[in-house]
Amino acid sequence: MALAISYEDIAAAHRRLQGVAHRTPVIRSQTVNGLTGASVFFKCENFQRMGAFKFRGAYNALVKLTDAQKRLGVCAFSSGNHAQGIALSAQILGMNATIVMPQDSPAIKMAATRAYGAQVISYDRYRDDREAISRQLAHEQGMTLIPPYDHADVMAGQGTAAKELFEETGPLDLLLVCLGGGGLISGCAVAAAALSPGCRVIGVEPKAGNDAQQSKRLGRIVRIDTPRTIADGAQTQALGQLTFPIIDALVSDIVTVSDAELIDAMRFAAARMKIVVEPTGALAMAAALQSKVEIRGLRVGVIISGGNIDIAQLASYLA
Amino acid sequence: MALAISYEDIAAAHRRLQGVAHRTPVIRSQTVNGLTGASVFFKCENFQRMGAFKFRGAYNALVKLTDAQKRLGVCAFSSGNHAQGIALSAQILGMNATIVMPQDSPAIKMAATRAYGAQVISYDRYRDDREAISRQLAHEQGMTLIPPYDHADVMAGQGTAAKELFEETGPLDLLLVCLGGGGLISGCAVAAAALSPGCRVIGVEPKAGNDAQQSKRLGRIVRIDTPRTIADGAQTQALGQLTFPIIDALVSDIVTVSDAELIDAMRFAAARMKIVVEPTGALAMAAALQSKVEIRGLRVGVIISGGNIDIAQLASYLA
Repeated sequence: MALAISYEDIAAAHRRLQGVAHRTPVIRSQTVNGLTGASVFFKCENFQRMGAFKFRGAYNALVKLTDAQKRLGVCAFSSGNHAQGIALSAQILGMNATIVMPQDSPAIKMAATRAYGAQVISYDRYRDDREAISRQLAHEQGMTLIPPYDHADVMAGQGTAAKELFEETGPLDLLLVCLGGGGLISGCAVAAAALSPGCRVIGVEPKAGNDAQQSKRLGRIVRIDTPRTIADGAQTQALGQLTFPIIDALVSDIVTVSDAELIDAMRFAAARMKIVVEPTGALAMAAALQSKVEIRGLRVGVIISGGNIDIAQLASYLA
Repeated sequence: MALAISYEDIAAAHRRLQGVAHRTPVIRSQTVNGLTGASVFFKCENFQRMGAFKFRGAYNALVKLTDAQKRLGVCAFSSGNHAQGIALSAQILGMNATIVMPQDSPAIKMAATRAYGAQVISYDRYRDDREAISRQLAHEQGMTLIPPYDHADVMAGQGTAAKELFEETGPLDLLLVCLGGGGLISGCAVAAAALSPGCRVIGVEPKAGNDAQQSKRLGRIVRIDTPRTIADGAQTQALGQLTFPIIDALVSDIVTVSDAELIDAMRFAAARMKIVVEPTGALAMAAALQSKVEIRGLRVGVIISGGNIDIAQLASYLA
């Protein structure tokens, strides 16, 4: 089966994002290199507009809509960062946006989504079917529904993060990427295959919800109950119909990280790297620091996917 | 009177630092631009090796020593970041280092200094004369004493931060730089005069100790008691004999910021910019955010000087 996106889609997305998305910095840490024996490159999407990589895919999806679609507006369901990405992209493009968000989303994410001018509709993460709610809304109002990961334009947009990383670092031996629904890792895996052939791509998901690990090992999409983890961006039930085949074909392995390990990684990021990372954003970093993957002697890319966390919550993790 | 350093000294220091110091990223924030109406460029020296710009000047001073001097070792007095800069530079160059530090220095800074292999000798910040202690130690053991700011090689090294900033941004209208003893701002002012003629340079110091503001306005070095402020890197009593003439000649004005405003800036940095900034490192940012200087419509550089803060202390500021 043909994969949903090619490297050309990522390159085209990157052209659309020029001057709109930040080209985020790649940060080195001598401390990390010393601790791990690897040469590690951190791609800091916590410095992306609205604080996470999700802006890339959201904007790439919206900018491609027809004028008629743009007039009718956009609808999205998201645990947070996709919501903000869609809201900000819609604002930039002069579109209306309606976002269906879990009612327990971090307050900072809900407030930011509203601040970008979007209408927010909330639901119960553990009871309601957000896709059904969103589809009905979109249908009633003629809005285009942009799902958070299972959409070719979204996946291609997310892949631009890895494209920029490889352009800065040259070939790598290994790329560690967090995953929930798999939009980021599928885009990054396609970029890696084109720009750094032979680079293994390994996904990192919360231990509380290892559906991707199971899916990868069984060769089919495994669906689980919504996992209870602090990594709110990875509380997904299943990989997508478009993301899974790419993960199946191009990702070497999936490893998992506990919430306690995420907090350790967030503390390390603040204390030693001077950056604020949200729990989901710390997944790949935690895998590197906790030796979930053998990285000694390797050139390793780590995607830090976002930095949107309530400051009071961050304070409690650091205290 | 001739100034202690020229732009050529900064350019030479920059060549010595190639491949040793990090070329730190320049970060933009749409939020900051929206709030201030300015176009702001943050030079993030919190991502420098050992967590602050001080590595630049320390390394530049040590690498220029003769082999005989290197064998006898180096001595420094510092409230923290200069200590770490000297300790790390000495480690890189295979030298012994003895650091005289206030006994109430942040634990993270004392621990890091020891971790770089330096011997730490502590003193009472409010009672003892650190310079006298350091001079006696250096004299007894034949060590070279590298002061934290009033030294041409240190000042030239610090100026490389501004050189990198201007290389990335092009000309700016205004550059905001924190100051304690004036090593960073004097180097940056010389760089600005060469690379962005017409760019005003404004210093920012703690309200609790406005000796530089008084010195600038009176045209002579004013000495004060050690100020009590959370900006531990700016708890200096007076500008230096070498830094003052440059500040007098090339700096437009000095403004002050309260501890409460520093905490607000640190919270903003963590919440919106996703970076950890130490109190001293937040001085220039606070001046921009709190409109201590009129920046609307201007292209403004802000030096974030460091990010070394105890994580528990940071947590208390964020809570």
